[in-house]
Amino acid sequence: MPKHGISPTRKEDYPEWYQQVVRSGELAEASPVRGCMVIKPHGFAIWELMQGILDGMFKSTGHKNAYFPLFIPLSYLEQEAKHVEGFAKECAVVTHHRLELDADGRLVPKGKLEEPLVVRPTSETIIGAMYAKWIQSWRDLPVLINQWANVVRWEMRPRVFLRTAEFLWQEGHTAHATEEEAIQETLQMLDIYATFAERDLAIPVWKGPKPSSERFPGAVETYSIEAMMQDGKALQAGTSHFLGQNFAKAQNITFTDKTSKEAFCWTTSWGVSTRLIGGLIMTHADDDGLVLPPRVAPEQIVLLPIYRSDEDQSAVLDCCHNLKEQLEQSQWRNENIRVKVDDRDMRGGDKVWQHIKQGIPIRVEIGPRDLAAGTVCISRRDEPPKQKLTMPLLDFPKKAADLLESIQSNVLKKAVDFRESHSSTIDKKAEVSEFFDSKEDAGGFAYVHVADDPAVAEALDPLKVTVRCTPMDWPEEPGKCLYTGKSVHRRSVISRSY
Amino acid sequence: MPKHGISPTRKEDYPEWYQQVVRSGELAEASPVRGCMVIKPHGFAIWELMQGILDGMFKSTGHKNAYFPLFIPLSYLEQEAKHVEGFAKECAVVTHHRLELDADGRLVPKGKLEEPLVVRPTSETIIGAMYAKWIQSWRDLPVLINQWANVVRWEMRPRVFLRTAEFLWQEGHTAHATEEEAIQETLQMLDIYATFAERDLAIPVWKGPKPSSERFPGAVETYSIEAMMQDGKALQAGTSHFLGQNFAKAQNITFTDKTSKEAFCWTTSWGVSTRLIGGLIMTHADDDGLVLPPRVAPEQIVLLPIYRSDEDQSAVLDCCHNLKEQLEQSQWRNENIRVKVDDRDMRGGDKVWQHIKQGIPIRVEIGPRDLAAGTVCISRRDEPPKQKLTMPLLDFPKKAADLLESIQSNVLKKAVDFRESHSSTIDKKAEVSEFFDSKEDAGGFAYVHVADDPAVAEALDPLKVTVRCTPMDWPEEPGKCLYTGKSVHRRSVISRSY
Repeated sequence: MPKHGISPTRKEDYPEWYQQVVRSGELAEASPVRGCMVIKPHGFAIWELMQGILDGMFKSTGHKNAYFPLFIPLSYLEQEAKHVEGFAKECAVVTHHRLELDADGRLVPKGKLEEPLVVRPTSETIIGAMYAKWIQSWRDLPVLINQWANVVRWEMRPRVFLRTAEFLWQEGHTAHATEEEAIQETLQMLDIYATFAERDLAIPVWKGPKPSSERFPGAVETYSIEAMMQDGKALQAGTSHFLGQNFAKAQNITFTDKTSKEAFCWTTSWGVSTRLIGGLIMTHADDDGLVLPPRVAPEQIVLLPIYRSDEDQSAVLDCCHNLKEQLEQSQWRNENIRVKVDDRDMRGGDKVWQHIKQGIPIRVEIGPRDLAAGTVCISRRDEPPKQKLTMPLLDFPKKAADLLESIQSNVLKKAVDFRESHSSTIDKKAEVSEFFDSKEDAGGFAYVHVADDPAVAEALDPLKVTVRCTPMDWPEEPGKCLYTGKSVHRRSVISRSY
Repeated sequence: MPKHGISPTRKEDYPEWYQQVVRSGELAEASPVRGCMVIKPHGFAIWELMQGILDGMFKSTGHKNAYFPLFIPLSYLEQEAKHVEGFAKECAVVTHHRLELDADGRLVPKGKLEEPLVVRPTSETIIGAMYAKWIQSWRDLPVLINQWANVVRWEMRPRVFLRTAEFLWQEGHTAHATEEEAIQETLQMLDIYATFAERDLAIPVWKGPKPSSERFPGAVETYSIEAMMQDGKALQAGTSHFLGQNFAKAQNITFTDKTSKEAFCWTTSWGVSTRLIGGLIMTHADDDGLVLPPRVAPEQIVLLPIYRSDEDQSAVLDCCHNLKEQLEQSQWRNENIRVKVDDRDMRGGDKVWQHIKQGIPIRVEIGPRDLAAGTVCISRRDEPPKQKLTMPLLDFPKKAADLLESIQSNVLKKAVDFRESHSSTIDKKAEVSEFFDSKEDAGGFAYVHVADDPAVAEALDPLKVTVRCTPMDWPEEPGKCLYTGKSVHRRSVISRSY
């Protein structure tokens, strides 16, 4: 039986496998604060790379970053009726602004606030209040602002990266003069998320509107990107909301149009979060641990010097550092290649396994024999640990970019293949039940005709399945809803989900 | 009388001038949440530039970023005795984790927490708790981690950027095997802050240890950089703390050394915050508004097309966009020059004043006459608004980097000169009183001999003056403390402060 880096394997215990990949990949861990995670340096470096790419995409489409308060007065949450229902349940509430030591030396809350404050679960209301002040005339529009921030939603069953009380995200909030422009913005941001997921994270996604029952509280339409995890469940990996004039009316965000008439703005909001790291893990990691698409790998190549004698040591280290320098001057996808020499004094096997578990795309071992032969011994993280490729040392810097590209496209292909082999186009109710019942895992995606109707959610509920989205890129294919008989134009994705 | 962009002027009403510079520069504004500011896109872009430079300096000295929870259990704050005294007073306390709608449709806090949580005012305790878990052996050391985060300290007299309930900062937290190494780290980070302040923000600073009465709660030694604002007051612009083994002992952060003995770690922490934006304003801004050192100017050059006819418009805009492209390909200080074409349809005078108030280093007006003559008309923000420099259009892209360098060094020189002319080396008690009493403004810096003794703080208190730091770069100059007669080796900086 082959030895695996991670125990249990995906097949043995998927949820526990996930926790072990996170732990052994040194990505994050639970904190002493219930439901809040600590994102460790390796995990945070992945997030920084994601931020860098997304931030560039936001800015090149005209968005600017700003920062709004962490706290929201209770009365603000009350403004939009559906919004308050959706978010009221799970908030951290600040009620005091001072601590005092009591006679026993314990700290006790003092200074009760007149109006309690909520730690933002999302910022539509506080940002909307500012937009109401800032926007006067059509000349002030559009307002295109993004915020990178922490948010808090109290979670009863936290799970690192996927569902934590505090998480990091970006939230874009825009205001427009016309409905059309706001819808265009909503869809543009959805496209950016889909491009980023597939091109950079190598996570294939279906993008489209969600059924009304799954909408963001207060939105007119919620679009999402949906990815399939290796247990067959869907992960909603990003959302873009067309808010219509709902928030504008609740918060009085108005402008004077070109004809001097006062009108309500049309607004949008859109976000992705550190949940994407969970998606990355559950899309690519294997039974040896994390597998990183090179594009979001903090180190794309690790050089591992191997030596016994002092003499060998200096020659091997010299070679590694020279190679590092050459590699760092090469580019892949318009960025300098990220290389690390790991010359820590520890057992070679442990060191290699650490890099495997951290998902580093390329490991290069260099020892005295390689020096003598003028070769390097290369292992790709997307291939089995023992599989090695030997190439002339001199060729490697020239070929490194191609290797990274090959790994990036290979992990995407694997993910696409996995989704294909766990998806089924279904036209009968009974087959839907069978699809989700017969499997050991969560099943996968069923592509079916369903109407946007409460009856559908009700029918799917016993299967623990929901409508994820109705992909927009698919060709139109009229049909009858399996559960209501209503005519619909396209198939939707239904599945279990996180 | 000359017209000014900002009313009142510095001389008329310094605190109100500051508020008006912030407002008219579109940097930030008060939010509906007491004491919390909204950082607007222009202000936030300055912060992003600061972050980028500092983050690079941190990483190139071996630090990694991570992220720790926003919340700290009350019991953690109680662990270090001095720390709890220092921070207990001004915290936001989370006591509930749910909201429910009552019969009147109002939200009320529910779900009382067993142990209240504090919104982090700083993270020594929560990060220390993780370090205690992570650090086992000398092989795990040093731990060099930084966090970019929001923190909350309830402020009774908030002032935008300088003192707000919530602010953004970075906090570095490191753990070391030896005292010497931890002290070295503390001083290294102090140096990084001083370099950043002078080289990038063009803010001259004095750096050195603070008197014990001004130490961070729980620190063995606190070092700071101190800058002089244009009202003569000091701004503590960054701090670096040597924490000794105080936190390690309180939190049991231990390691096994090379001889297999268990020992406590030596720790440090260091931080700068969005307060630096306040420092930037109060160092460089003038009676026309913000003045940005080019290094942290989101746009370093703004191109202003001027035209009346449609024909002129297309020729002028073409010229602007060509020029932008050329400029963006030039570099200054290893970065592409940041250029914007402002072709908004608004009154030219208003437009120019907006850029003046936002502190854009170089404005370039381009109209049909310039096109015909093949020239551009350049205004530097560090010179009076009406002063203009004409140069051949073709020369400008080649000279832009020099111009930016010249502005950068000129604003630094102005700040150094200001500090010089508002500082005095004083050796008599009576002269100290006179120095701080006789001025219309806050006086400035007095360089004096004072001991690290409570008697000094007491003697200076009626003058509203404190000891800011004892600059380490100054030559030794033994003398007697003006207030205690004790022998000291160096002069210290005393002044009023923010």
